[in-house]
Amino acid sequence: MGATELGAGGSITIVPLTDIFEITIIKIVLSTWQVTRRGACRSDTNQEERNVGKDISQAVIRRLPRYYRYLGELLDGGVERISSGELSARMNVTASQIRQDLNNFGGFGQQGYGYNVQHLYEEIGKIMGLNERHNIIVIGAGNLGQAIANYMNFEKIGFVIEGLFDINPSLKGRTIRGKKIAMLEELDAFVLHHKVDIAALTVPAESAPSVANHLVELGIRAIWNFAHVDLNLPDRDVVVENVHLSDSLMQLSYNIMMLGSQS
Amino acid sequence: MGATELGAGGSITIVPLTDIFEITIIKIVLSTWQVTRRGACRSDTNQEERNVGKDISQAVIRRLPRYYRYLGELLDGGVERISSGELSARMNVTASQIRQDLNNFGGFGQQGYGYNVQHLYEEIGKIMGLNERHNIIVIGAGNLGQAIANYMNFEKIGFVIEGLFDINPSLKGRTIRGKKIAMLEELDAFVLHHKVDIAALTVPAESAPSVANHLVELGIRAIWNFAHVDLNLPDRDVVVENVHLSDSLMQLSYNIMMLGSQS
Repeated sequence: MGATELGAGGSITIVPLTDIFEITIIKIVLSTWQVTRRGACRSDTNQEERNVGKDISQAVIRRLPRYYRYLGELLDGGVERISSGELSARMNVTASQIRQDLNNFGGFGQQGYGYNVQHLYEEIGKIMGLNERHNIIVIGAGNLGQAIANYMNFEKIGFVIEGLFDINPSLKGRTIRGKKIAMLEELDAFVLHHKVDIAALTVPAESAPSVANHLVELGIRAIWNFAHVDLNLPDRDVVVENVHLSDSLMQLSYNIMMLGSQS
Repeated sequence: MGATELGAGGSITIVPLTDIFEITIIKIVLSTWQVTRRGACRSDTNQEERNVGKDISQAVIRRLPRYYRYLGELLDGGVERISSGELSARMNVTASQIRQDLNNFGGFGQQGYGYNVQHLYEEIGKIMGLNERHNIIVIGAGNLGQAIANYMNFEKIGFVIEGLFDINPSLKGRTIRGKKIAMLEELDAFVLHHKVDIAALTVPAESAPSVANHLVELGIRAIWNFAHVDLNLPDRDVVVENVHLSDSLMQLSYNIMMLGSQS
């Protein structure tokens, strides 16, 4: 293939973007079929509006973390129970939407009582798998990679940074919250000896596709992609969650324009 | 109000989260009304599924940056024209969806010819306001703030970092891509003498609401919020784009569970 290859040696060679685009065009056809077939999630694709997994739409799944966050705030505030109406006002989601969303998972509400905050918080946590520990490695230990590794809140919800990797020798051995930054050559051996659930990808867009493919070859099944490119992975069961900051900034820009046109 | 206040002096006092939650509950009612009234965008709220601005749904707006990105890749690859069918395969969005999306803005396609890539790229750029320069300040110059300031690609699409601010004296004077990190006390004076279009907020969740309110008081109309809290701003015309990384990680976690339950 035209894209960069990560051999066991783990050396990276940057290739012209055009190469990647050529193979991307070919791969897209495959991946379109894959995604549909395996119902994997690309959070910035049209797939998100459809149903995946147990017929739960990605729109509902996008709201689950918000329910969890708000319920956590209520708990911290000492609130024991809440009606869907109160939760609705708090979350700016209609009460019927909340009932619909939660009914996807069996309800949890009691007529006339509302929701037990602690119980609902725990149940939504379980639904999202937050009762299990997730080991994360960060590929690309620049500012963004270090920001992710430094963010304590992830650890609070069970996402633990197990290692950071980069190709920049000047970063080698630097410690981020007790974890030494390793060189990418060491990745394969590391994955052999550590349970890795998620790889956070904060490498340049040019190398992201080949690095992601290598991660999948190493058996990693979940990629948190910060590279500004859509990953088109081989036909395996892998979930990808994209965080495209440029896209977010462009959406903001659009809404600034709309604001201007209104006022 | 119970939340932290940023006086002209700009000193920050962290208050117990509970205080913020109390005022949040009150404010939410206000903001629910505001958001509906002014059609402002909270990209992680239910609002995103509804119509804002010129009756364009946020779902369409979420896709615009992807169209722009893919068309940019096609341009770099030397592709001059593309059919909605080819674009569809490439983007994993149905061809009819693409036609519908673009018809919101007047089409651009020609029967039998498809789309002129250069033209469509430029038009979508204009729709998102990328033909104008946007000055950004970053509030919170930790790893994440520095990562944002360091990201060249934002500048390529007209988003220019004009300043970084923090309350940590050890960061004072450190230079990120030619911009000195200033102390938050200097913010008011800076905004008086510089055009600021967007404030990227990478401060802790506890102080984010009060800092955001102060930014609005200073006349800033767009906030790119990375703090893990929903901002409930006073009743003014402000757009907020949230990047909640924890929410993204929880969505990934959910999809990992679904993957496990399928295989």
